[in-house]
Amino acid sequence: MVIGEVMNNMRLTTLCYIEKDGCWLMLHRIKKAQDENAGKWIGIGGHLEENEAPEECVLREIREETGLEVTDLKLRGLITFILPDWGNELTFLYTARTDGDVPADRLDGPEGILHWVPIAEVESLSLWEGDRVFLPLLNQRQDCFSLKLTYLSGGALEQAALDGEEIEYAH
Amino acid sequence: MVIGEVMNNMRLTTLCYIEKDGCWLMLHRIKKAQDENAGKWIGIGGHLEENEAPEECVLREIREETGLEVTDLKLRGLITFILPDWGNELTFLYTARTDGDVPADRLDGPEGILHWVPIAEVESLSLWEGDRVFLPLLNQRQDCFSLKLTYLSGGALEQAALDGEEIEYAH
Repeated sequence: MVIGEVMNNMRLTTLCYIEKDGCWLMLHRIKKAQDENAGKWIGIGGHLEENEAPEECVLREIREETGLEVTDLKLRGLITFILPDWGNELTFLYTARTDGDVPADRLDGPEGILHWVPIAEVESLSLWEGDRVFLPLLNQRQDCFSLKLTYLSGGALEQAALDGEEIEYAH
Repeated sequence: MVIGEVMNNMRLTTLCYIEKDGCWLMLHRIKKAQDENAGKWIGIGGHLEENEAPEECVLREIREETGLEVTDLKLRGLITFILPDWGNELTFLYTARTDGDVPADRLDGPEGILHWVPIAEVESLSLWEGDRVFLPLLNQRQDCFSLKLTYLSGGALEQAALDGEEIEYAH
């Protein structure tokens, strides 16, 4: 908390997996050119805007991208992404629930297409390697975990560390 | 997670209250010129360095500032500081325990002077107004909370919001 120290250049983002009837709302990123997530399936989220707290950001992103009202919003983890190709990113990972329906005009949005996917089937989708590390933690952990995912240039996962300890993961 | 979006300009820091025998290790900031914390008592922490996850940062800061080995490191909260005078800051708030002693040559360091203060007496110290909001939460909350503290220019606290809901606090 001292003036003049070097700024950290980490991007700050939120990511939420919204549950309804045993499904997660997944965004299939097939819309944007130059999207690092092109073709991948991810949760709902985006960048922190100026003066936003993480929970404000995630609720705004949910509202903008899905039009849904959610309950039971809970911070489940921090994810520190080391991304040589894209710049590092620190993600606040949430879960939430809804009883609502995504308005028809939001299902096919500028970011991608929204689908409700049974949670057990999510692992069969095209996901980032690191997402296969943190998604199971949403079932295994009730406390807030911290995961560090170090990617290589090109998009392969080099290392995963959970709460400061390197862990094994399936390649 | 899209190229070209605006970077967030928030400083990222960690802050840890280390407990031993019913005391917290408090740093009395009386050393640096141009220190926004001048005269205040705070916990141990500092800025995230490049490629650091929050838990790596806090353990490095504890090691550098105190020389202590700690156990039971736990993320207790996120604090979003809106600071018009200093630039916004997002702090990862931790607690930890130790059985060790601070080496004599670390008690009077470049950041300030380290003191073990009985937890019940911490509120009698010169603290930031917002610290009087979040420190009691360390006793009241077991889950990871998110607190947004909006300061006015000059250092008075304007607003506090806990998990997205504005709360009352003592002035």
